[in-house]
This record gives sequence, C-alpha cells and structure tokens, in this order.
Amino acid sequence: MNNENRKISEGTISRTFAYLRELSKLAKLNIRTISSSELGERLNLSDSQVRRDLRCFGNFGTSGSGYDIKELEKELKGILGKDKTWNVVVVGVGHLGSALLAYSTFKKIGLEIVAAVDKDIKKSGKEIKGVPVYSSQELPSIIKNKNISIGIIVVPVDNAQDVADELVKCGIKCIMNFAPLSLNVSNNVKVKNVDLCRELETLSYFLANK
Amino acid sequence: MNNENRKISEGTISRTFAYLRELSKLAKLNIRTISSSELGERLNLSDSQVRRDLRCFGNFGTSGSGYDIKELEKELKGILGKDKTWNVVVVGVGHLGSALLAYSTFKKIGLEIVAAVDKDIKKSGKEIKGVPVYSSQELPSIIKNKNISIGIIVVPVDNAQDVADELVKCGIKCIMNFAPLSLNVSNNVKVKNVDLCRELETLSYFLANK
Repeated sequence: MNNENRKISEGTISRTFAYLRELSKLAKLNIRTISSSELGERLNLSDSQVRRDLRCFGNFGTSGSGYDIKELEKELKGILGKDKTWNVVVVGVGHLGSALLAYSTFKKIGLEIVAAVDKDIKKSGKEIKGVPVYSSQELPSIIKNKNISIGIIVVPVDNAQDVADELVKCGIKCIMNFAPLSLNVSNNVKVKNVDLCRELETLSYFLANK
Repeated sequence: MNNENRKISEGTISRTFAYLRELSKLAKLNIRTISSSELGERLNLSDSQVRRDLRCFGNFGTSGSGYDIKELEKELKGILGKDKTWNVVVVGVGHLGSALLAYSTFKKIGLEIVAAVDKDIKKSGKEIKGVPVYSSQELPSIIKNKNISIGIIVVPVDNAQDVADELVKCGIKCIMNFAPLSLNVSNNVKVKNVDLCRELETLSYFLANK
C-alpha cells in the first residue's frame, strides 16, 4: 500500500469497519444497493461523512444508484484485512489472559488465538480453554511457526515493556496492550491500549458531579 | 454541580485525571510547586492546554510561582471524586466477569467491587476471588444495601440491554459495558463501552496495509 493510504485517520478506519458491518447485514437480507445517506442514517452519520470516508479507499458507487452492496462489501473486506484470519498470541495467562482465551467472539471477527505464553513454567505444556500454553522462551519460535501477526500483552505492568520489545524483535507489528503504561515501540508498530482502570476511573467524576 | 460544569469535555476530564496522577507522584517526592509548562511537559501537553483544562474547574495557581502541588492535588481529588471509594457491582460472572473480580488495580483507584450477580443460580451464594455472588433477583436489594454506584455489565449481548434497564431502574447512574452493543439509556446515565473486539478488529487494517 502506498504512503498516501497510510495517512487515513483512525476515525475513518473505525467508521469503515462499521460500514462493512452494516453492508454485511444488508447483503444477508438480499438488499442490492444502498445510498450514502441511507448507509449514514443507519449509523447516525451524514451522507457526506460516508462519501468522504469511502473515497479514501477508492471510487465506489455511482451517482444516482448508490453503492452495490455485495461489491462494496467485498472491496472493503479486502481493504480492511477482513478477508483472512489473523493469528494471535496472548502473553500472560493470569485471570484476564485466561478470560481472553475463552473469548469466542474474536474468532467471529477473523482473529484466532493460536497460542498463549506464560513465564510460569507450571502452566506451559497445558491447554487453557483449548489454547496451548508455552514457556516464554518459546515465544520466537511460536511466532514464526504459527505465523502469528498480533500479540496481546496481559502481563503485570513491570514486565510489559520487556514483552513488547520481545514481540517486536520477533517481527510482530500489531500489539494490544492491557498493561497500564505507554509502550515505547518504533513507529511502524501499531499499539492499541486497553486500560480498564482509566476507563472506569473517569466514571468517578460523573458520580461526584451528578 | 451546576449545569455549566456538566459541559466540561471528556478530553479535559481525562487529562485532569492524568494531571492528578502526576501531582500525586510529585507530592510523594516532596516537591512543592510546579508550573503549567512543567506539568504539561511531563504529559506531552502544552502549557496552555494545562491552564485551559484546569481553568474549567477553578482558579488554581498564581502567576509566576505556579501551582501549589499538595493544594491542587487535594482540590482535584475532590473535583474528580477521587477522595472517596465507590462501590461496584459486576453483573455476569463468566470468564471475563470472574477475571474482573480478581483485578486488584480497581481498588487502588478507589473502586471496590463489593458484589457480583449471575443468573446461574449454581453460582449464587458462593464467593469468587473474595467477592460474594448473588442471584439476579437480589440485584435491587444489593444495590441499595451495599450503596453501589457503578454497574459493570459482562453478560452476553442479548441480555445486556435488560441488565442495563434493571441497573438504571435501581438508580445506577454509571455503567461500564463490555457487551458489543450500544446501550439505550436516558441522558443522565453515563455509559463507558469497552468493546474488545472492535479495538482488536481495527488492527487487521494495519496488518493488511503494512
């Protein structure tokens, strides 16, 4: 993909995933076409927002008759990487890590947790919720042999940067981080932070001021 | 709190939580004062951003000598509702719900999970990670008797709206929702959505276009 496409905003990307979800629902109902205003209405977005977002990825639809739903669905699946399955490794199999192993919805969206890793050697060699658990030393070979693209970090905060460094060294370009810190990684690595405490913490403001 | 304060943006609120964290660290080091530019630098924010955010909550600091750290820390704790503990109920004790019960970091930020509820009657009457589990029927009485302010929804998507309705009926004003849907609640209820799949899903775009 060229550099221009790299500049597409996270907002556009995230909305385009929502367009794809709507298109897939409509395709199942055998609806053939949809206008930008109808698509926008389903998501509380303006028609110009829909057109502006989709134009980032190509020239879809024809003026007057709107978008061909099946065609646009197929195009967007390819563009968003939803036409294949991506393999995931979970690093850290404590309470939250184990819960993620059982999170079946991941599979529905094309992500498959194929391995877990824990530094506690008592856990390695076992299966948790059907996912094999390996020792930390095996991380490089697992990533290579199992063709893993995404790493989920669910270790204590003090170990999280070391795990991130190790994942990046093994060629991982996408990380989902549950540890409450800002990971220091190079620009070509994409990190999504999920800090449950900070999410919940801000609720106290609303309680104190309700 | 008056209506004017209700208009403070989520960005300002979330940054002010970050200011408070920094101030608490500095107070522990017995540092007495800090300027808006020094505080901003620690968080990669401009001094004018810091001043603009804090001005939403009151007139702090004096021109030339900056902010009194202990004083500002105390003020912000009160404003952000961090000077007390808020009681939390977790609804749904599956894999993820159980993991949240064990998430000790919540306590550190002033949130205490005092009860869990599950519709599976085999789970009620037990303790999971030290938290008592009750049957769904007991939700109203638990919320009242245990003075609960926050509800965390970790039930399957098809039950989430019903649980939200029940929580709101019991007077809950703050909800953290892990189910992948938009909850329909009245304007005076604050909902934080954590949709792990959508967070992870967008990573596929970066993998497809790296």
